[in-house]
Amino acid sequence: MTQIYDRVALIGLGLIAGSMGLAMKRAGCVGEITGYAKTAKTREIADRIGLVDRVCASATEAVQDADLVVLCVPVGAMGDVAAEIGPHLKPGATVTDVGSVKQAVVDAVAPHIPEGVHFIPAHPMAGTEHSGPEAGFAELFDNRWCLLVPQPGTDADAVDRLEDFWHALGANCERMEVEHHDLVCAIVSHIPHIIAYTMVGVADDFHRVSEQEVIKFSAAGFRDFTRIAASDPTMWRDVFLNNKQATLEILGRFTEELFALQRAIRTGDGQTLFDYFNHTREIRRGIIEAGQDTDAPDFGRSKKH
Amino acid sequence: MTQIYDRVALIGLGLIAGSMGLAMKRAGCVGEITGYAKTAKTREIADRIGLVDRVCASATEAVQDADLVVLCVPVGAMGDVAAEIGPHLKPGATVTDVGSVKQAVVDAVAPHIPEGVHFIPAHPMAGTEHSGPEAGFAELFDNRWCLLVPQPGTDADAVDRLEDFWHALGANCERMEVEHHDLVCAIVSHIPHIIAYTMVGVADDFHRVSEQEVIKFSAAGFRDFTRIAASDPTMWRDVFLNNKQATLEILGRFTEELFALQRAIRTGDGQTLFDYFNHTREIRRGIIEAGQDTDAPDFGRSKKH
Repeated sequence: MTQIYDRVALIGLGLIAGSMGLAMKRAGCVGEITGYAKTAKTREIADRIGLVDRVCASATEAVQDADLVVLCVPVGAMGDVAAEIGPHLKPGATVTDVGSVKQAVVDAVAPHIPEGVHFIPAHPMAGTEHSGPEAGFAELFDNRWCLLVPQPGTDADAVDRLEDFWHALGANCERMEVEHHDLVCAIVSHIPHIIAYTMVGVADDFHRVSEQEVIKFSAAGFRDFTRIAASDPTMWRDVFLNNKQATLEILGRFTEELFALQRAIRTGDGQTLFDYFNHTREIRRGIIEAGQDTDAPDFGRSKKH
Repeated sequence: MTQIYDRVALIGLGLIAGSMGLAMKRAGCVGEITGYAKTAKTREIADRIGLVDRVCASATEAVQDADLVVLCVPVGAMGDVAAEIGPHLKPGATVTDVGSVKQAVVDAVAPHIPEGVHFIPAHPMAGTEHSGPEAGFAELFDNRWCLLVPQPGTDADAVDRLEDFWHALGANCERMEVEHHDLVCAIVSHIPHIIAYTMVGVADDFHRVSEQEVIKFSAAGFRDFTRIAASDPTMWRDVFLNNKQATLEILGRFTEELFALQRAIRTGDGQTLFDYFNHTREIRRGIIEAGQDTDAPDFGRSKKH
């Protein structure tokens, strides 16, 4: 494959950067990959497992002469990193990120990007419950979506090039307005996570049912929540602090609906419950038809012959 | 294997009965298996795919001379079925069920069980999002738990025998008081299901994000909820109508916790969010150590090499 960028710098070396590094190598779509992480331990692991070609001692060193710089740090840390690397960016380079919220990233990062450097926020919608550099794998983005959120006036060629890059890593791409991005992600990602965290917290704190019982009998539904509730706490704290408006709006809708179902339970209104439960099967079917989940029973955990 | 029961009758031929039929054949632990389902179509399918040895035209015919009768119908239908078969049960037989709630089943079924027949409520905690006779598979109960809820005074040998039977089908067994059963299941199963249904309903009804967007981008967390929200609507309506007290109590706890996190988001209290999210990782670890879920990233949907 033709090289899309000569040099790529990954700032932050967790699950996403690690998977990007491996996916870039699989695709052979870039020249040298440099990388930097804040902690020495992460840098050592990244070096040992060969996540990038060259682990650098600082972010400024890593971005030197880079044609693409990818900010892979928690949303709350993006501004500081941008301020640090801003003066060292190569003219004509592209800066992008992988943050789960976009308005807050634009607000934090854009002021530090010098004239002549393209800043194109992006969000690969892929992940697992595992964190850290060793959690990365080359297939993470295959058939997943990467949302590009270019600001008005951004160089069209630079955006196309970033899109080609994500395609090479296996992802589908879609462009979206920043505000709409944050709303879509609140629905498909942020609210599901806060609800899963809450459910696991309630089970943990409910003393009349022991933790051993919760664990033993979790296959009855509960364990599905524990996967996403095992996601990185720092990342998720920053998501909620930085997508307040959309999160709070949809949480309001969620509790309204939940109260309606709670009332149906209390009053014994079986028809309302049945109609609600019957309706939600369709979305599942759509997700499976769109290739975004497996129809294997129980996520394929159960073996059916 | 020695035969545990000479003749077993399955009343209701959906996912659970279908899996029991196949698991019994795999184990070779019973003699003849008879079966009955309310609709002719289900009976035809069961006959065609060989779920049981003999599909009967009525429940009373199916239970004739049966040593074990398993009620595999929705919780709301258990009472009627028990009334119908009660006079036809063989003296010394055992009647059990697979319902997800137990107090309501005891109340509905026990009055119809004649003297000399053992009624031992049970609940195999296993299932998938698929329903119907063709959804069954022999491995469904392997390493899952079956809760036995014998009433005081029940014949100890009959309970031991039913436990042997569930072991032969691959399950682990535990005995529990009826009230505690309904509370445990509210936490590990009923509340996760109502929350998943609600989340899917909210996403479906939120018109500023299209259904196509929800489906496309569902891998970001949402799709984990859609699996259990695709479960059988009749079964789940009956569960909520029949486990009102425990469900409403835990829903109250859930919304209380959710409001606390919502407040932390609104006020920007990152420490509270971080502490909460950090804590919930431990339960996930426990579940994996107990062999109740896979540690493969993303439920094994992503291929990691």
